[in-house]
Amino acid sequence: MNSSTSLQRTATGARERLLDAAAALIIDRESIEISLAEIAAKSGLNSALVKYYFGGKTGLLVALLQRDAARALAEMDELLGMNITATQKMRLHLRGIMTTYRRSPYLNRLLHAMLHGPDEPVRREVHRLLVQPVFNCQRKILAEGMARGEFRPVDHGIFYLSAIGACDQFMQTEGVLMLSQAGVDLDMFRDQYISHVVDMVLGSLSPGADAGRR
Amino acid sequence: MNSSTSLQRTATGARERLLDAAAALIIDRESIEISLAEIAAKSGLNSALVKYYFGGKTGLLVALLQRDAARALAEMDELLGMNITATQKMRLHLRGIMTTYRRSPYLNRLLHAMLHGPDEPVRREVHRLLVQPVFNCQRKILAEGMARGEFRPVDHGIFYLSAIGACDQFMQTEGVLMLSQAGVDLDMFRDQYISHVVDMVLGSLSPGADAGRR
Repeated sequence: MNSSTSLQRTATGARERLLDAAAALIIDRESIEISLAEIAAKSGLNSALVKYYFGGKTGLLVALLQRDAARALAEMDELLGMNITATQKMRLHLRGIMTTYRRSPYLNRLLHAMLHGPDEPVRREVHRLLVQPVFNCQRKILAEGMARGEFRPVDHGIFYLSAIGACDQFMQTEGVLMLSQAGVDLDMFRDQYISHVVDMVLGSLSPGADAGRR
Repeated sequence: MNSSTSLQRTATGARERLLDAAAALIIDRESIEISLAEIAAKSGLNSALVKYYFGGKTGLLVALLQRDAARALAEMDELLGMNITATQKMRLHLRGIMTTYRRSPYLNRLLHAMLHGPDEPVRREVHRLLVQPVFNCQRKILAEGMARGEFRPVDHGIFYLSAIGACDQFMQTEGVLMLSQAGVDLDMFRDQYISHVVDMVLGSLSPGADAGRR
């Protein structure tokens, strides 16, 4: 792990600088529509390096997505091995997704642009990097919870979509505040949103939930 | 109401034909990226009529959104006046949103493209036409349910986002089936998804839900 030469360190430096520049531009702009020239100007590097390191702008955006999600994916793996109940794991998992969106405010938009973009190989790659691991993590926690009698039987595809749908709206909180009451603190609203979604989704897994509502 | 002249009928016909052509193209293409030339070819009308009736392609897409949502919005108004419990109203409301997405498979994608597009007046218009009415409808049902003791107190902004988030994923069901088990019927999966989301969201409103999970 300590084999990096001076040359490799420089290379890593340039690669990271390009990613940092793209992230800063996206945050400033509140849009993922950024150009190679802007990334070059912001990073102080030649735009040809984007092609060299990432194959192009789309490749750079995928790498940015991957970098931002890496910490969340590592935490997810750790979570699966913890000696806690499936209920606690699922709570931490859902909270983790929304905390990740909060940490990287553009992550959700970038993810959806890549997942529904025109480029089929990119869609597959992002699916493999981000959708599949989250889906698999949930499947494991669900299986554990069902085996332990903590959760009622539930289809993991249906669970995934409904839970992710509610989590994904986390970044829309700002918009809905316009409709809601004035003077509400955005951070407080987001804290409450996370708790509401975690409770709502966990409620749908409760063994009593099914019987109680039929 | 019966004052339409022959000229007006012809005009309505052309307007509708342009909307029908755009809808058919979007469904064929599974993409909202359609050109004026394609709309003209499909409808057999001159593309200048798009400008005449809708001010341009974006105006046409907003009108399409509005036309497809009109039935759902009318049903929503009707629902509010029904002599049923707030719980029943909310169930019908949520089911209605997902049924609308099912009826117009591109509605959800079109809605999000307009709501997050670069054009500020379009964003406002779509917000006014579609987001605001749904938000207001939910607010009324929530107020009624809380007053009747059917629902626990809940912030309507938080409720709106989490419920709509889960409903919005309805159109992603096809994608998740690749990840889920093979051989599942898409229609059956969607039926189950609707029931799951309705139960999950209603569960979050149950007066016992809060106390039970703390």
